[in-house]
Amino acid sequence: MRDLSKLLDLIASFSQENPFPTSPIALYEPCDYILTLGGKRLRPALVLMGYELFQDNVETALPAAWAVELFHNFSLMHDDIMDAAPLRRGQPTVHFKWNTTTAILSGDVMLIFAYRFLARIGDADTALQLINIFNRVATEVCEGQQMDVDFETLSAVTIPEYLQMIELKTAVLLGGALEMGAVCAQASETDARHLYEFGRLAGVAFQIQDDLLDTYGDPAKFGKQVSGDILQNKKTLLVLKTLEIAPASDCRELQEWMQTSAENPIEKVAAVRAIFDRNAIPELISKEKQRFQQEAFRHLNAVQVPEARKAILKKTVADLLEREQ
Amino acid sequence: MRDLSKLLDLIASFSQENPFPTSPIALYEPCDYILTLGGKRLRPALVLMGYELFQDNVETALPAAWAVELFHNFSLMHDDIMDAAPLRRGQPTVHFKWNTTTAILSGDVMLIFAYRFLARIGDADTALQLINIFNRVATEVCEGQQMDVDFETLSAVTIPEYLQMIELKTAVLLGGALEMGAVCAQASETDARHLYEFGRLAGVAFQIQDDLLDTYGDPAKFGKQVSGDILQNKKTLLVLKTLEIAPASDCRELQEWMQTSAENPIEKVAAVRAIFDRNAIPELISKEKQRFQQEAFRHLNAVQVPEARKAILKKTVADLLEREQ
Repeated sequence: MRDLSKLLDLIASFSQENPFPTSPIALYEPCDYILTLGGKRLRPALVLMGYELFQDNVETALPAAWAVELFHNFSLMHDDIMDAAPLRRGQPTVHFKWNTTTAILSGDVMLIFAYRFLARIGDADTALQLINIFNRVATEVCEGQQMDVDFETLSAVTIPEYLQMIELKTAVLLGGALEMGAVCAQASETDARHLYEFGRLAGVAFQIQDDLLDTYGDPAKFGKQVSGDILQNKKTLLVLKTLEIAPASDCRELQEWMQTSAENPIEKVAAVRAIFDRNAIPELISKEKQRFQQEAFRHLNAVQVPEARKAILKKTVADLLEREQ
Repeated sequence: MRDLSKLLDLIASFSQENPFPTSPIALYEPCDYILTLGGKRLRPALVLMGYELFQDNVETALPAAWAVELFHNFSLMHDDIMDAAPLRRGQPTVHFKWNTTTAILSGDVMLIFAYRFLARIGDADTALQLINIFNRVATEVCEGQQMDVDFETLSAVTIPEYLQMIELKTAVLLGGALEMGAVCAQASETDARHLYEFGRLAGVAFQIQDDLLDTYGDPAKFGKQVSGDILQNKKTLLVLKTLEIAPASDCRELQEWMQTSAENPIEKVAAVRAIFDRNAIPELISKEKQRFQQEAFRHLNAVQVPEARKAILKKTVADLLEREQ
């Protein structure tokens, strides 16, 4: 059993030993660029952790782990175009540093390379099982991204719709990463499914927490601009919950704030937070997160391996879900 | 052995029996849209023809055929964004009818669906072989598109570079389609390779012919605006050949025309054509096309099946390469 930093070292070595082709440079340079922007590499680590629950020779799962990381970065590269985002992890995005053509085409080739790595896994049956999981999850990520795009212009979004969106856009890839690790290790179908559910539900809990931290997090620890969601009028879970349970006057006030651009951002953030606070929204959302988190860990507990083998995965995910608020 | 129209009927039925999901509608509707714009469906037909050289139950190859058609349309949808093209087959392009976000995301999901269909093929070994071919070809198509983008701003492009670009961007997919059909039918590696080479070389010949027809084709038969290449100052094979062999004065005159926007298009087309004509460029380019075409058919001849089985494939490709000039 290797700890997270040891797994990340293996992933870094694998990526160095398996570089992109050098030509055409304009196609592959942006792929190298986005991969070195300093992401946490949580997803490929989850593939390896899913594997290590069942087997020790974790190197076997490295191509699948790298495929998941390439897929994640493909989706970031394309999402950044759609969001017209100038920055990613504090650095210029690919479409901003180069141009949209580059970000489309380099993203496309990264997705294709993800499949190239999947096809390198062990025997054909396992490779095909992995590709089937990957296909399912990749489709769902596109569907989640589309829902997110749709929500921007929809006047009414329900909480179940919102939860489905974050599940598809983000959580299923965490579940799929663990499931792929388990499949590489020839785990039983039941165990692989429990791991998928663990990752999926923990992923939803994580996204709910992300909504909370954006408004209530400690700026020094959160690592993003706090209250960006309020200033961008995002329909987060905090907003949807308020509109569901708050008195009509608070709903009206919130909707009015959400139709303004923030001429005085400090005033707007304070006013919206006050609406959330007097309706106990942070507490309600925290409970929602707890429900997903507990359900997630029930699935991890059901996986039929000794508890000791689960220690690193358990700690990694628990740490992610207990970030300071 | 089925003729082309019968194969196209099978492809049309397969696509109707295997529709995209209905939701999110904004994701899948543009996929249906581009697939019904009336493309010739040559590539999926080539998969089926590659199969029918060796086996009769061509239905087996339909998922692979459809995967190739989805890939082709994915690449069109993304290329149209990069080219800022408003029209495709006389209809609005996806990014023009909807927007760039839609064209990126719907293109992405079409590529993923291509892999979903590939993963449905027969046994795992065959599916993985198909995915390996597909991965190789899809990577090359991206590389070719990048070269095409790079050429727009490069001052000097050589003829070998140009031939490599059209090979990657267009020809390898025709070769890959035939190879995939052969692999579905459990053909020998040698036969599958000959079919790949046949498609690849015929594809290069076809693209060379396309350059010729753009300037010298009969507008009624060519189906595109004639002389568009000259008016857009494209570095076609005609231009590159002229710059290679013509006297310095003709090269200078051509380069001057290519640095102007066409205030008088009729005058510009006539002048550039005259440069081509007095250097016998159409004849030279025709010979270049013939060389690729003959080499292509040598590979088809080498495929170890009775001549009668090759009749439809031979006729289909020969017809494409003998379009009126």
